[in-house]
Amino acid sequence: MSAYRLLKEECCEANLALARWGLGDLTFGNASVADVDRGVLAIKPSGMSYDALTTADMVVVDIAEGEVIEGELRPSTDTPTHRRLYQALGGIRSIVHTHSRHAVIFATAGRSIPCLNTTHADHFYGEVPVTRALTPQEIAGAYEWETGNVIAEQIQGRPPLQVPAVLVRSHGPFVWGLHGAQAVENALALEIVAEIAWKTLILEPDAVGLSRELLDRHFLRKHGADAYYGQKP
Amino acid sequence: MSAYRLLKEECCEANLALARWGLGDLTFGNASVADVDRGVLAIKPSGMSYDALTTADMVVVDIAEGEVIEGELRPSTDTPTHRRLYQALGGIRSIVHTHSRHAVIFATAGRSIPCLNTTHADHFYGEVPVTRALTPQEIAGAYEWETGNVIAEQIQGRPPLQVPAVLVRSHGPFVWGLHGAQAVENALALEIVAEIAWKTLILEPDAVGLSRELLDRHFLRKHGADAYYGQKP
Amino acid sequence: MSAYRLLKEECCEANLALARWGLGDLTFGNASVADVDRGVLAIKPSGMSYDALTTADMVVVDIAEGEVIEGELRPSTDTPTHRRLYQALGGIRSIVHTHSRHAVIFATAGRSIPCLNTTHADHFYGEVPVTRALTPQEIAGAYEWETGNVIAEQIQGRPPLQVPAVLVRSHGPFVWGLHGAQAVENALALEIVAEIAWKTLILEPDAVGLSRELLDRHFLRKHGADAYYGQKP
Amino acid sequence: MSAYRLLKEECCEANLALARWGLGDLTFGNASVADVDRGVLAIKPSGMSYDALTTADMVVVDIAEGEVIEGELRPSTDTPTHRRLYQALGGIRSIVHTHSRHAVIFATAGRSIPCLNTTHADHFYGEVPVTRALTPQEIAGAYEWETGNVIAEQIQGRPPLQVPAVLVRSHGPFVWGLHGAQAVENALALEIVAEIAWKTLILEPDAVGLSRELLDRHFLRKHGADAYYGQKP
Repeated sequence: MSAYRLLKEECCEANLALARWGLGDLTFGNASVADVDRGVLAIKPSGMSYDALTTADMVVVDIAEGEVIEGELRPSTDTPTHRRLYQALGGIRSIVHTHSRHAVIFATAGRSIPCLNTTHADHFYGEVPVTRALTPQEIAGAYEWETGNVIAEQIQGRPPLQVPAVLVRSHGPFVWGLHGAQAVENALALEIVAEIAWKTLILEPDAVGLSRELLDRHFLRKHGADAYYGQKP
Repeated sequence: MSAYRLLKEECCEANLALARWGLGDLTFGNASVADVDRGVLAIKPSGMSYDALTTADMVVVDIAEGEVIEGELRPSTDTPTHRRLYQALGGIRSIVHTHSRHAVIFATAGRSIPCLNTTHADHFYGEVPVTRALTPQEIAGAYEWETGNVIAEQIQGRPPLQVPAVLVRSHGPFVWGLHGAQAVENALALEIVAEIAWKTLILEPDAVGLSRELLDRHFLRKHGADAYYGQKP
Repeated sequence: MSAYRLLKEECCEANLALARWGLGDLTFGNASVADVDRGVLAIKPSGMSYDALTTADMVVVDIAEGEVIEGELRPSTDTPTHRRLYQALGGIRSIVHTHSRHAVIFATAGRSIPCLNTTHADHFYGEVPVTRALTPQEIAGAYEWETGNVIAEQIQGRPPLQVPAVLVRSHGPFVWGLHGAQAVENALALEIVAEIAWKTLILEPDAVGLSRELLDRHFLRKHGADAYYGQKP
Repeated sequence: MSAYRLLKEECCEANLALARWGLGDLTFGNASVADVDRGVLAIKPSGMSYDALTTADMVVVDIAEGEVIEGELRPSTDTPTHRRLYQALGGIRSIVHTHSRHAVIFATAGRSIPCLNTTHADHFYGEVPVTRALTPQEIAGAYEWETGNVIAEQIQGRPPLQVPAVLVRSHGPFVWGLHGAQAVENALALEIVAEIAWKTLILEPDAVGLSRELLDRHFLRKHGADAYYGQKP
């Protein structure tokens, strides 16, 4: 039996959840789950639709070197982006990339998603940033690896779980979490937050962001040291 | 057997109906049902998704004091808002809070939903108001209780069933009714009305409200003393 | 057995089709089917949700006098509008009223739906008109009957099947056809056409209407004397 | 047994896939599949809804002459457009026509869909063009054949699979591929790309297109000679 069975199961379940929540059209997007101690990740195979994915299809890849350790299929073309992010962002265990419609709109417009309401503050501790454009050199070179770099630039110096998402300019969101289900939940929350922000800005282009006090209250009552939202672990 | 079985069943059913109507994404939102004579409410537990909710999960809470009377789980963090509203608004028996997309848009934009057409007038006797912003002191203090207060400010002096909904600024709607199914129905009507209002205002920013005569005719033919809409009780 | 069984079955099926196509939220809307020779119509009962409607629930009403001929329930409050339209518009056999979102937007904005593309021209031979506002006297009087009158004003002098829909200002669409399934199909086509028109006008406020030549070609290839769209009867 | 059984099966499956993906409302749209060697195409019958289509309903038509070779039903009224395109565009084997909402919006507004992001570049090597308007003479004459001509004008001199879609002005998209499933997939990708472009342009009317470098990288990593997206054949 595979030494990576649990990892591949969690990865497959995260990919299927993307499709179940309407975040995965056609073959767009992918989810990975990492076993940081063993230095590996499991990821969706490249260009496969979500319909018939099975645990056995997941590809196990070495995070440091990028070689395939287990699996018959080619890993997602975005694998170098995932690898780079597991290296750059300490403490995360799953990464999800989608082309979810409203998050892509902000990425396409080259705009961060401002924190306008408590739904946003319940999940993201401030605006969800958009990256700079990649240079022609970065695009011509190790494009997918460089994509990881411009995402990491946005996070530098902040705990990666405070704002667990970045929009790659002209492309779409990368989102993460402590495990597959959490990364997918953050991707769904991002899409909802983006839809509401888009519709609000169409109605009220000068909509003002949430006050500092309300942002703190909502984010911290759920994610802070004294959180009182949700059940005891 | 629990002395609150019927109350908890009605509460569970109202929460499940929120999800069934697309008003409950992830763990957002909650419904409560009150037994005013006994001074208690039943409410959704905090941070639970709607998928697997059962009657046994509902939490019974004392309206006056806030202590848990029955249930293993923590009640919704919004419980103090519900308690405050049952105290302030006479004659209501169920309260629903959602993050439904279009109602949240108006809350985020800090705008009331104007009464623009008969769909609105069939359910709400005039505009659905938005609250003032909470002060930093209110946010830092008993935040959820104060949220109930700013809602109640909007209703003062009016029968609470004439306009059974208020938008909390930067947050979202609280909606009520005489029983769980009615509160949920009002929440769904609010979302539909908000969607149409949003789309109308995008097309026609100066759209004028319904005439007084048409508002009266539609609201009263359904909810007035001489109502002739619907079946005899 | 009821002498109106077939009529009631067709009416029930039309009402269920409204819900199936997403045109009937909550209790909004209604469909009727007429037997003009016998001077009666069957219509949805007032204020009932679509979930559990049965043929036996349909109410048979005298078109000329408005009295209930068969049925235990109250007929739709909009019955006088239907009666008036069967009298005013020759040759139609079914009428559908909905609160479908995008058609209501145009009604709320007080704007006709311009004929902008071939999808529109395949179903409606020119713009779908909006009525004038009812006067306070008309609203205070026989409101639902007067609603039929302002609709009929828009059709005067034209074959009613050329543009089988009118938007009642601040309210919503009434749509018709030769039988229940056709009236429902026209209501669905209207909603699709309205959605596309709304989105086009948001992008391009000065979008120009279809040329006369293209309007004629598309409407007449489907509905003209030499129609060649569809199968032979 | 029919000599065209496989062709008709592929054609029926493509038409059913249009409905399954939400691209076929009512009777709008149609898919054809060609056997270029035998000079025939199979196509959806005219004016039929997608619900009950079977392989036996597909109509086999001679591409050069237009006569029906097999089938009891009338072929789609758009058959001359399909015939013309199989003649004009070398190397394609399936054509799909839809009235999908957002693609129709751009057609109605008379605007090409600009290439704004990588989702677009993954499928279309540059903007999706809109045709010129047909002249009154073309509309009055062999209208559906002339529709094929104005589409072909947009492709002249380019490999037809680089941008496998054209918007017919005031009408809607025609999309193609190497087989039925690919043409349908391109039609779905077009609708998604159009929705995102519409929403982006509403938010940011001056949104700039994708850089040449990013367009090349994304289109060619999937469709170029050295493509590395997807699995080995």
